[in-house]
Amino acid sequence: MIVVMVRGASREQIEDVEKRIQDWGYGVHPIYGEERTVIGAVGVPEADKARYMESLEALPYVEQVLAILRPYKFASRELHPEGTVVDVKGVMVGGSQIALMAGPCTVETYEQTLESAQACRAAGATILRGGAFKPSTSPYSFQGHGEAALKILREIADKLEMRVITEVMDPRNVEMVCQYADILQIGTRNMQNYDLLREAGRVQTPVMIKRGMWAKIEEWLQAAEYVLLGGNPNVMLCERGIRTFETYTRNTLDLSAVPAVKELSHLPVVIDPSQGTGKRSLVEAMCKAAVAVGADGLLIEVHPHPEQALKDGPQSLTTADFGGLVERLRPVAAAVGRQL
Amino acid sequence: MIVVMVRGASREQIEDVEKRIQDWGYGVHPIYGEERTVIGAVGVPEADKARYMESLEALPYVEQVLAILRPYKFASRELHPEGTVVDVKGVMVGGSQIALMAGPCTVETYEQTLESAQACRAAGATILRGGAFKPSTSPYSFQGHGEAALKILREIADKLEMRVITEVMDPRNVEMVCQYADILQIGTRNMQNYDLLREAGRVQTPVMIKRGMWAKIEEWLQAAEYVLLGGNPNVMLCERGIRTFETYTRNTLDLSAVPAVKELSHLPVVIDPSQGTGKRSLVEAMCKAAVAVGADGLLIEVHPHPEQALKDGPQSLTTADFGGLVERLRPVAAAVGRQL
Amino acid sequence: MIVVMVRGASREQIEDVEKRIQDWGYGVHPIYGEERTVIGAVGVPEADKARYMESLEALPYVEQVLAILRPYKFASRELHPEGTVVDVKGVMVGGSQIALMAGPCTVETYEQTLESAQACRAAGATILRGGAFKPSTSPYSFQGHGEAALKILREIADKLEMRVITEVMDPRNVEMVCQYADILQIGTRNMQNYDLLREAGRVQTPVMIKRGMWAKIEEWLQAAEYVLLGGNPNVMLCERGIRTFETYTRNTLDLSAVPAVKELSHLPVVIDPSQGTGKRSLVEAMCKAAVAVGADGLLIEVHPHPEQALKDGPQSLTTADFGGLVERLRPVAAAVGRQL
Amino acid sequence: MIVVMVRGASREQIEDVEKRIQDWGYGVHPIYGEERTVIGAVGVPEADKARYMESLEALPYVEQVLAILRPYKFASRELHPEGTVVDVKGVMVGGSQIALMAGPCTVETYEQTLESAQACRAAGATILRGGAFKPSTSPYSFQGHGEAALKILREIADKLEMRVITEVMDPRNVEMVCQYADILQIGTRNMQNYDLLREAGRVQTPVMIKRGMWAKIEEWLQAAEYVLLGGNPNVMLCERGIRTFETYTRNTLDLSAVPAVKELSHLPVVIDPSQGTGKRSLVEAMCKAAVAVGADGLLIEVHPHPEQALKDGPQSLTTADFGGLVERLRPVAAAVGRQL
Repeated sequence: MIVVMVRGASREQIEDVEKRIQDWGYGVHPIYGEERTVIGAVGVPEADKARYMESLEALPYVEQVLAILRPYKFASRELHPEGTVVDVKGVMVGGSQIALMAGPCTVETYEQTLESAQACRAAGATILRGGAFKPSTSPYSFQGHGEAALKILREIADKLEMRVITEVMDPRNVEMVCQYADILQIGTRNMQNYDLLREAGRVQTPVMIKRGMWAKIEEWLQAAEYVLLGGNPNVMLCERGIRTFETYTRNTLDLSAVPAVKELSHLPVVIDPSQGTGKRSLVEAMCKAAVAVGADGLLIEVHPHPEQALKDGPQSLTTADFGGLVERLRPVAAAVGRQL
Repeated sequence: MIVVMVRGASREQIEDVEKRIQDWGYGVHPIYGEERTVIGAVGVPEADKARYMESLEALPYVEQVLAILRPYKFASRELHPEGTVVDVKGVMVGGSQIALMAGPCTVETYEQTLESAQACRAAGATILRGGAFKPSTSPYSFQGHGEAALKILREIADKLEMRVITEVMDPRNVEMVCQYADILQIGTRNMQNYDLLREAGRVQTPVMIKRGMWAKIEEWLQAAEYVLLGGNPNVMLCERGIRTFETYTRNTLDLSAVPAVKELSHLPVVIDPSQGTGKRSLVEAMCKAAVAVGADGLLIEVHPHPEQALKDGPQSLTTADFGGLVERLRPVAAAVGRQL
Repeated sequence: MIVVMVRGASREQIEDVEKRIQDWGYGVHPIYGEERTVIGAVGVPEADKARYMESLEALPYVEQVLAILRPYKFASRELHPEGTVVDVKGVMVGGSQIALMAGPCTVETYEQTLESAQACRAAGATILRGGAFKPSTSPYSFQGHGEAALKILREIADKLEMRVITEVMDPRNVEMVCQYADILQIGTRNMQNYDLLREAGRVQTPVMIKRGMWAKIEEWLQAAEYVLLGGNPNVMLCERGIRTFETYTRNTLDLSAVPAVKELSHLPVVIDPSQGTGKRSLVEAMCKAAVAVGADGLLIEVHPHPEQALKDGPQSLTTADFGGLVERLRPVAAAVGRQL
Repeated sequence: MIVVMVRGASREQIEDVEKRIQDWGYGVHPIYGEERTVIGAVGVPEADKARYMESLEALPYVEQVLAILRPYKFASRELHPEGTVVDVKGVMVGGSQIALMAGPCTVETYEQTLESAQACRAAGATILRGGAFKPSTSPYSFQGHGEAALKILREIADKLEMRVITEVMDPRNVEMVCQYADILQIGTRNMQNYDLLREAGRVQTPVMIKRGMWAKIEEWLQAAEYVLLGGNPNVMLCERGIRTFETYTRNTLDLSAVPAVKELSHLPVVIDPSQGTGKRSLVEAMCKAAVAVGADGLLIEVHPHPEQALKDGPQSLTTADFGGLVERLRPVAAAVGRQL
């Protein structure tokens, strides 16, 4: 922790800051520059740093306080140099095999879900995605079929030997959703829903945390830290586009987040090109890029009849599109030493 | 709803779109331009629009679908031309009196809260703010004292004849928090936590919805629509800064949101300059601007000793600062025909 | 300058960094923390800092380099504690009188400009704005009447005893525009057009630098530094909205930039609510807020017949609106100890 | 063009809008909805649209005006279905061969440039990049060696049979730079420097327009339209990252811009992962993604000794890194049917 004093800070003011740091039990290393005095504080543990930094920054004679270390621990690669491979009942996410998660945006009916799931399975997907609880900007939009949809997902997944990933929004539903799902998805709007994250930390079901559309990578890793700290080590991340000024795409899919997370953290990273672009015509190119950039999985919306979809039709691939896409992705995966 | 066909759409494709619209029971008005055919759909009700728009946009021969009407109804000024005044047990928000909501970021102890509250009350604040449940980016930061803090808030507010505003984060806590609070605050990270919004719509306690740091005004009003549609008419909004590329301030406080919301909606708007800037030195100027721009209330962090605060010290005013600030705000309020 | 070494940096690597800093002639102050070594460098002059920081950051065993001082000097308030008042041939910008700059977006005809200017003058404006060279996103939009428009502006301003502010876009035109204009406006798209800034630094005509719609405050002040370093001390800044994700307004007018610039710099700050919002209906409220927040001037688009304007009609006030607006702004100015 | 009237617009107001459109010579198609009247205008040519839209939007009884067609013509794929291949003296950009543009950020000395260029050439680069005129946020940073640097670039490129790409910032220098360069680079800060774009439209030297860090894809294509309309058909685009709230990377590299531009336009698209990320450690992964997503070229900073670079060392690859990178990119190119 580096404390920068204001220009012209007095001897007393400098000593006051030094004394505060020493009172907390840490070492003090002042540097007297020509224009500013800077005080290094050594030995401040992670758990107290945020609080002490704010406390010093609140002093009128402190200009700024700079952090030196990253604000997360269990999520960091420093303390966990090997990449984590999450075991989803035998389907691995984070290994050399890239995980294909595909299915409809929303579970509408058994037939629609089955038709989509069969096509996805045939093309190579091993994890079935489908929404039972849907976060919708408008209260007038479809909100999902809830537990009934979870039953459909489970039944179809079992029949096709797939795993199930589905979103949970309400902390009250975490346990119930765990009865049906193999991966709990925390949606972009809930990345900083701390009560939900805490509940997800209490179970052992793998959790996939989507990046908040407003979230810095560092904040995203701190969301993961909530779950890891809670005791659930089975965490994966999903980049699904951030909000920028661009309006041609629904979001701006930040593929640099993959190598960035890989150098900061040991957690696997999945890419969602459907939400990330909001346009079916861009999905294939972004899937290829995601595989090449090092993503550990792809999450893709596939609907037998996108124009009849209750939600997100414009970004869903048809089941026919999807098969061809996977074929074209395989050589890209091979080119970077992975399989699909 | 205006459907724009792709260039060169065939006769059959145009008729297919027309037929779909007619099958939903709506009127069809095609315009044959030189480069594109455009089809107007008349009579589509609000509740179905989002779904139908997506469904048409999913067709490969539709280029885009444009909405004509706003995606909210109960929140709109069109259907409610008079501005809403929310009655918080006799303290009005939205009338000619500007509501002053002040107090510490977080309830730390009874004494600290009382000292802050007394100073705020003496300066003219009628609503006591204070955090019992704190959303913190880091799991290692202080998370609030929970129900114990609520009791402190209630006791002090009753003693000083103030009202209480405090944040609720977990839908499971809405009822409990209502026992202590006069206004439920929905925080920025929870603006699209729909289960929480739905719970807030089931009670009659006034609700203040902070704008998501990533949220367009239109999305913010749809969050309000969730609560209004649920049956709770006592909704106010709070602008607390949006996330931009600027790093000197913690957020970018969007004051144009006040007149913008006023022309779109009848709901009162409160400004939070403490969160909005993250810097104590900018709070006074932004309070003056907020009053001048037409805000119905101010939400200000005041701490007796900001450098000892457990959270957000750098943006808290001292109790001494606060009294002077209110004095200097009064002539600005008068200049725009309001009182403070 | 604070150099943070990577975790586990070796003795040799630390010494290499120390040696580099010493070779540049500066003092070295290492702090050996538990997880990282941090090296303070003392005495690095402003002019070399950026280069040295990048050079160290390029070393694989350096994690990051943190700056302590602000990257500008002539623009900083530290070296110039008094606020600057720019003298525009007797009209002061930066004093207790708030400067009113008003007129049409674009000079279309002599009559239109005269009609607008007379109304603005009558209402209290002392500086006439009007575009002769227009930056237009589309090459098919109106690009301005060039020098002919400058002649019209000068003639009308002289007749009405006003000053002229107008945009210059091409470094080749700076001298020519100086023959007609009293303030050179550098537009938002040219805030980092360094050849243009350098030309503006070679003259003594006052310069108003609009904030780039993508620019951090620190970068904006560095643009001012280019002009000041060039030898022209007559610099003012203009906040005109930054680009964010919000689409209801054309830009997000960042009023916190006024007190922020005031604490960092001595330069006057003008607000442009017309560009800043892009909507006539929001201009009045934002003018009031701008005056209350401490702006030194307002730049407002006024057109006798906005619906016939060649450009920016939707954000122009009518001449009738403008008179009433100024009346309503006067008490706000008085409330913060200014005149208008 | 679709004109949406305000709710409750009167018969006279609707007729006024219709009359204006008819007076301009266009067809009028009103749709009388239940809540709004909407008027379609047919036959409005591109060149007049922007102006007419603004003019109608300025009317108080018009709520909004929606465009149907794209605001560019020569840049659009509709009018030029085949992808453009720019011929840079025999080196093709836009064909099946991906163009490798590499070299130092800045030309510092003959030796440094030669060392970098030889390594780049050996690895397969055919176009030598290097800055002679450098846009620097700080006036104290290195600004480039100007024409002397251009001579070095030309001499080395001729010796190694490479082509030269270099930035031009000042419209006065376009002709001079054309004497040395094979591609004129318009930098991100100058994407809307219209005088510069117009000069670039007057020559036949290929032009590469970097996306403004604040620019929507539609605005970027309009910048290209300036050059194309001026008479220079040899235009390519370069995505180099946009400005967002993320601070871990210097910019957010928007790879979805590649397929997006490909569906809107026929112009080739190059990716700059060095500027796009600002971090050497992320460059390789983003190069792979760029190739997989369909980029027509890569622009990469390579320096023999990044830690001695005068500029942008942290994002430069070493010459040794670069050779290995190209080897690892070749199978990715092959996987998407391209060569490198």
